[in-house]
Amino acid sequence: MTFRDPGAQEGLLSPIWAGRDTHTSDAAVLQAMIDAEVALARAQADLGMIPATAAGAIEGLRSSVGPADLAERAREGGNPVIPLVKAMTEAAGPAAGPYVHLGATSQDILDTALMLVAHRTLGPILDDLAVSARALGRLAAEHRATPMPGRTLTQHAVPTTFGLKAAGWRSLIIDARARLDRVRRSLPVQLGGAAGTLSAVEAYGGDLRLLGAYARQTGLAEPTLPWHVLRTPIADLGAALGFAAGALGKAAADVLVLSRTEIGEVGEPTGGGSSALPHKNNPVRATLIAAAARQVPALTAVLLGALAAEDERPGGAWHAEWQPLRESLRLVGGAAQAAAELMTGLRVHPDRMRANLGLTGGLIVSERLVAELTPLIGRAAARRLLDEASREGVPLAEAIAGRTPLEEGRLAEIMDPARYLGLAPALVDRALADEEDP
Amino acid sequence: MTFRDPGAQEGLLSPIWAGRDTHTSDAAVLQAMIDAEVALARAQADLGMIPATAAGAIEGLRSSVGPADLAERAREGGNPVIPLVKAMTEAAGPAAGPYVHLGATSQDILDTALMLVAHRTLGPILDDLAVSARALGRLAAEHRATPMPGRTLTQHAVPTTFGLKAAGWRSLIIDARARLDRVRRSLPVQLGGAAGTLSAVEAYGGDLRLLGAYARQTGLAEPTLPWHVLRTPIADLGAALGFAAGALGKAAADVLVLSRTEIGEVGEPTGGGSSALPHKNNPVRATLIAAAARQVPALTAVLLGALAAEDERPGGAWHAEWQPLRESLRLVGGAAQAAAELMTGLRVHPDRMRANLGLTGGLIVSERLVAELTPLIGRAAARRLLDEASREGVPLAEAIAGRTPLEEGRLAEIMDPARYLGLAPALVDRALADEEDP
Amino acid sequence: MTFRDPGAQEGLLSPIWAGRDTHTSDAAVLQAMIDAEVALARAQADLGMIPATAAGAIEGLRSSVGPADLAERAREGGNPVIPLVKAMTEAAGPAAGPYVHLGATSQDILDTALMLVAHRTLGPILDDLAVSARALGRLAAEHRATPMPGRTLTQHAVPTTFGLKAAGWRSLIIDARARLDRVRRSLPVQLGGAAGTLSAVEAYGGDLRLLGAYARQTGLAEPTLPWHVLRTPIADLGAALGFAAGALGKAAADVLVLSRTEIGEVGEPTGGGSSALPHKNNPVRATLIAAAARQVPALTAVLLGALAAEDERPGGAWHAEWQPLRESLRLVGGAAQAAAELMTGLRVHPDRMRANLGLTGGLIVSERLVAELTPLIGRAAARRLLDEASREGVPLAEAIAGRTPLEEGRLAEIMDPARYLGLAPALVDRALADEEDP
Amino acid sequence: MTFRDPGAQEGLLSPIWAGRDTHTSDAAVLQAMIDAEVALARAQADLGMIPATAAGAIEGLRSSVGPADLAERAREGGNPVIPLVKAMTEAAGPAAGPYVHLGATSQDILDTALMLVAHRTLGPILDDLAVSARALGRLAAEHRATPMPGRTLTQHAVPTTFGLKAAGWRSLIIDARARLDRVRRSLPVQLGGAAGTLSAVEAYGGDLRLLGAYARQTGLAEPTLPWHVLRTPIADLGAALGFAAGALGKAAADVLVLSRTEIGEVGEPTGGGSSALPHKNNPVRATLIAAAARQVPALTAVLLGALAAEDERPGGAWHAEWQPLRESLRLVGGAAQAAAELMTGLRVHPDRMRANLGLTGGLIVSERLVAELTPLIGRAAARRLLDEASREGVPLAEAIAGRTPLEEGRLAEIMDPARYLGLAPALVDRALADEEDP
Repeated sequence: MTFRDPGAQEGLLSPIWAGRDTHTSDAAVLQAMIDAEVALARAQADLGMIPATAAGAIEGLRSSVGPADLAERAREGGNPVIPLVKAMTEAAGPAAGPYVHLGATSQDILDTALMLVAHRTLGPILDDLAVSARALGRLAAEHRATPMPGRTLTQHAVPTTFGLKAAGWRSLIIDARARLDRVRRSLPVQLGGAAGTLSAVEAYGGDLRLLGAYARQTGLAEPTLPWHVLRTPIADLGAALGFAAGALGKAAADVLVLSRTEIGEVGEPTGGGSSALPHKNNPVRATLIAAAARQVPALTAVLLGALAAEDERPGGAWHAEWQPLRESLRLVGGAAQAAAELMTGLRVHPDRMRANLGLTGGLIVSERLVAELTPLIGRAAARRLLDEASREGVPLAEAIAGRTPLEEGRLAEIMDPARYLGLAPALVDRALADEEDP
Repeated sequence: MTFRDPGAQEGLLSPIWAGRDTHTSDAAVLQAMIDAEVALARAQADLGMIPATAAGAIEGLRSSVGPADLAERAREGGNPVIPLVKAMTEAAGPAAGPYVHLGATSQDILDTALMLVAHRTLGPILDDLAVSARALGRLAAEHRATPMPGRTLTQHAVPTTFGLKAAGWRSLIIDARARLDRVRRSLPVQLGGAAGTLSAVEAYGGDLRLLGAYARQTGLAEPTLPWHVLRTPIADLGAALGFAAGALGKAAADVLVLSRTEIGEVGEPTGGGSSALPHKNNPVRATLIAAAARQVPALTAVLLGALAAEDERPGGAWHAEWQPLRESLRLVGGAAQAAAELMTGLRVHPDRMRANLGLTGGLIVSERLVAELTPLIGRAAARRLLDEASREGVPLAEAIAGRTPLEEGRLAEIMDPARYLGLAPALVDRALADEEDP
Repeated sequence: MTFRDPGAQEGLLSPIWAGRDTHTSDAAVLQAMIDAEVALARAQADLGMIPATAAGAIEGLRSSVGPADLAERAREGGNPVIPLVKAMTEAAGPAAGPYVHLGATSQDILDTALMLVAHRTLGPILDDLAVSARALGRLAAEHRATPMPGRTLTQHAVPTTFGLKAAGWRSLIIDARARLDRVRRSLPVQLGGAAGTLSAVEAYGGDLRLLGAYARQTGLAEPTLPWHVLRTPIADLGAALGFAAGALGKAAADVLVLSRTEIGEVGEPTGGGSSALPHKNNPVRATLIAAAARQVPALTAVLLGALAAEDERPGGAWHAEWQPLRESLRLVGGAAQAAAELMTGLRVHPDRMRANLGLTGGLIVSERLVAELTPLIGRAAARRLLDEASREGVPLAEAIAGRTPLEEGRLAEIMDPARYLGLAPALVDRALADEEDP
Repeated sequence: MTFRDPGAQEGLLSPIWAGRDTHTSDAAVLQAMIDAEVALARAQADLGMIPATAAGAIEGLRSSVGPADLAERAREGGNPVIPLVKAMTEAAGPAAGPYVHLGATSQDILDTALMLVAHRTLGPILDDLAVSARALGRLAAEHRATPMPGRTLTQHAVPTTFGLKAAGWRSLIIDARARLDRVRRSLPVQLGGAAGTLSAVEAYGGDLRLLGAYARQTGLAEPTLPWHVLRTPIADLGAALGFAAGALGKAAADVLVLSRTEIGEVGEPTGGGSSALPHKNNPVRATLIAAAARQVPALTAVLLGALAAEDERPGGAWHAEWQPLRESLRLVGGAAQAAAELMTGLRVHPDRMRANLGLTGGLIVSERLVAELTPLIGRAAARRLLDEASREGVPLAEAIAGRTPLEEGRLAEIMDPARYLGLAPALVDRALADEEDP
């Protein structure tokens, strides 16, 4: 059975996923619920529980109910499956009608539908994350030794390289992708009947083989137990989506800083405009990703909190999962796509990085000076010299001129930030070697 | 200028507000944004900043853009106002076009629109809460001395009255209503221009009087300062909505417990059905309210977290408010309506309460026995007697028979749970007298 | 009765409140529980429920139990009041012992104690916020027209003034202070007995007057009803603390940005050092405030979520409040004190602000150019000219030279960022006039 | 170097972990920081970076600083490592002092210390979860066919078995244990130096081999990259702890329901007492576990939110992790231990389960009747009959007497709830076979 409506979406207040809602719109959720009912009938026909003709008839149904209609009728019983089953049963007529939803409970269908929605949404998300990871792999390799200021607590610390920064973003995104991929492979069908005992399945002649048959029909995994109140799949999804939002949010946070007017070390491929200012070139993708990263962890908390649910179906905890799960999928989906655009087109400005390295007048290499002076004058004296020199308000080279045993040429070399990259290039190589492109 | 579309809503996974989305749908948000632009033009015309004819023309526009269209174009610049202004300017033509959005920034319009959305949504919410409060006032008065078990940590403690329980729910709902009402009265227009200095307003000949004129046109409050990054209104809304969800959630939590098959002391007006079980009579309103109460506090946390936003407009924190604010309004709106239905039709079963009072075989009045025996045999001995008797596994009357100096008639009186209501009826009277019906 | 121990605190992982834990340490909480028991006895003596000598004896007790001891014994019954009552009763001996905790339940004492803890902690918090507000009032007045770049989505937008920024911080802090002050004044005593009916109070001869007498003894407010499961005070506290953390977090977020090595427009009074780098001068107060602002909203969500609690005392929701409430008080207390230090000693660098205003080569006043050119060449042409000029990569003055009808002197004036402050100074005056110093 | 203080703990408001704080107290955290410094020196000695005698001297230090002292001095620089390094350097004297903390930054030590704390805390947690899982395996096997009411949305649905419920709890706890175990094995040392480039390590003659040597000294894993701002380990810990709290919270939620006075199907090994009521027997372990399950997800959200951190060390996001991570470890640790006690001593009452199965007067098997009648009279007629009969308010057997073609004996058999267990026993067997005892 198929259902398609014009696909009204509601993204005016969520630009990050607006227009990219293929698998999570109300219409898509409704289709997934129908897919779950059809798969159940087909699985039951495979095992001889119901006539093959009934399964065929159910599959061939054309329904006139739309999502808005079902949504409104969902309130009466608390979920949208009840009116859907009613509509499907009526549409199927007296011959096939009795075989619609046989042995199932509403939660079996809605949970399975949400697993399908998650499975379908995560496909493009994994792809988008792979695009980002590959783009960042290229950036990391290209800029493995491109010097830029390392910043801690907002202040220049010691130099780093842009390649190491890109390798770090890539590492997080690969971690996020691995977690989402692992969860996606484990998403199970749901089938337990009224209270998780498969009582009606047995009463209508079925047995535990139905779990596997149903899983095969949907492409989802077969669970060990009905998981009506064992919400591992939802909690794992929530955790992995929260992680992914944060991983993308890290890169976005850096792009926002590095795009600042005063810093200008990177730029978005194309900036966002403004309704008021002709010259604005806003880091809009990073902004929207950052906005997603602020929302998803709270939704994850709702999903984790729903684990602690009483009885064989709780009064509230289950219902509280649906919208946060959808919203998390949407936000991460939008953020993954925005990140793919951002990373493939990121503009990197080594000249600005080089210029910014000079801003502290040499203090950015003060650590190195301590290290170089330690064998010559002792660590304590070296640290004391630099502490004092740092506070004099003049360029460091000037402040320490004549106060160290280092000769001038060596001092100039030591004080070149571009020559104080530590093991950054080697770390980039190590990261690219250890974690392959997805 | 008006805009109306068929009003596609997206509530399939949020039955509590599905079909009740008048003021929070994408179409309603778009209308509110248009209302904000029109109000701004009218306010500017009032002060002579722009020609009255231009304001009239802007007000009379008919726009062909719809919310889905704008939503999709919102991604480019990060918010939906940018494409809206473009569409309105084009529609207004060369004469009125230059006066559209004059001196404003996108955030001025979107913030004002969200305040209008909140103001409009909170109206019916206040009404629904008042309906609940009045219904509970009646229930509290009627059942001020209707005995039922008081339960702590799931165990019968001492008797209470259903009236005191209803008075408690009412008190929380009145508190919630007062907080929402206070916030609603304070919701301000937003107007600050590009960076909150009203620079373009001044450049086009305006001054601070525009804030008041704009406020009058919208019916919202006049702020002291532009609040682009002073998010008191959003945070206050979030906190009050979180409180309201929790207040309603308390009543729902109790209804869920008291509706249990084993307890049966209250019932919903009409129960929800089941797709599997003919006999089910589920407390569906309480379930959906409980689900809302699990979601809103997390959204409140996002809104409170957005207070800590950098600069004159942050890269992410502002954008992260929009959807959580809408979702909170929707959930509380749905929950308030469900609660109004629930409280006006709640079925109360004093007979079941009375029966349940007997379940502990008298232990529910053990506290009273200690109190009565203390003057006779001392507190320590009384407590020791009851401690022992409680553990004997027989009805308390039997366990203590002959072991107290109390005569039989007096003992029977003391052991009647219905005569051990403490100050519950007086507390009901006090609550009803102290807090008037809204 | 008094209790004092050496006051072991646990702040190694919370530097913001470490060493400033006077009213929230375990020892302080224990003292508050004892204060609650003593106040109850005194109130009961006032009303003649118990002998005055018993109240006096209870007040004069010296206890040997310490917080670690009670904490460990708290697990058995789930709260620390049970072992405390046992210890106090034993210490009071046979004469006064029976009057310890008379008619009360554990929750009465722990809730009242936490209200005392909150009341005591909020005192210095209100003071610290007032210090910040006054310091910011001075900064706002002093810098009402000190120009600096206004920044939106990380990019220079139009000029603003540092005074307006300071006035904004002040406004939020005044809002936070008002909310905390309002909640503090409303914090009530708790007294309801076993299930909120004051059953044992009545059984021992008391009546509703005890609520008022108890309130007077503690200095807290008198509640209308026992609020064992009507958690308005906790929810209001949580919301106000979440607001305060966010309000302080806004100022901290700005200080972090403005302290950046590349920006340097403000500095902390004294910076934090580093274990590795001699030159580091970290914005450490802003960092710790920002860290607090990331934690408190989540704790607020826990407290709001605890509203939805079943029965006359819930199995979990009440116990889940204690530590998040204490942690919120600590974090806000530490942040308020850090902010007071930060704001009273903040170093402001108008020269760096002025220099940064020049970074966009004039684009920061492009809005003004559109406004000035609109009457001369029309809005559309003006906007088009600036759009093009903005993209040419040369200073704006150069890009538009000879392309406008403006004469050179006027153009120079228009392009001076320091002369495009909009209504910023007037807004500062308005804010200082509208909201008085606390 | 060792450090031990009397171990002041602060658990008065967290009874679940009070007195069980071995690895998370301030003293334990300080010891872990010292362990990290010593391990670093030993690793450097192994590689010849520093003299072996220096490493030995550092290891042998006796320090006079205590956690309260360090905590207070932590505020100045924002973290406790800075004063610790100062104290250790002084204590080590001129010979070994220069080799303390060589090439490291504060974050290297604090992150490594927190990984050690997590590693040490998770050991007993894994053990406690295994105890619970094994106890539940025994309960599941023993009660695989012990009938009890299955409850959905608080109402009796169809029968289930207590074994299936226990198998479900076990499954969640095994899932939680697997997630924590996986994270524990991956916990890495931290070493990156001032900005994650290992600059000073290289300056002092070290190279990437130091990462492995350091890891070996601590027993932690070797990371690919320094993870100062790649917070996968913290986020993974947060997610797994949030999951564990929820998994334990599910079992606690069920125990709370099933312990209700009206239900009485299970009981805690020993109940908690009351300060007011002699007879109370509270499910105190379940209550404290439920309280933990309400807190940890919010802390997880803080930890996930901290992923989105700017720069090479952020101003706030890092500092915001410390206390929520410790609190999560404590809460889960306490909950795991309480669950182990609860599950090993749980009292199960099959007689009460059997009695409760009769409460609906047969409606609990109405689903079965529909299934049995469908072949005889058609599904629609069967469902209609049961719908009507369910509403008649008399026992179902009476309501349908004479209205079905079923003979009396068969009807009695069908209506025996104990004979309608569906596939529950088979599902128990499957779960026990699929998931081995840990």
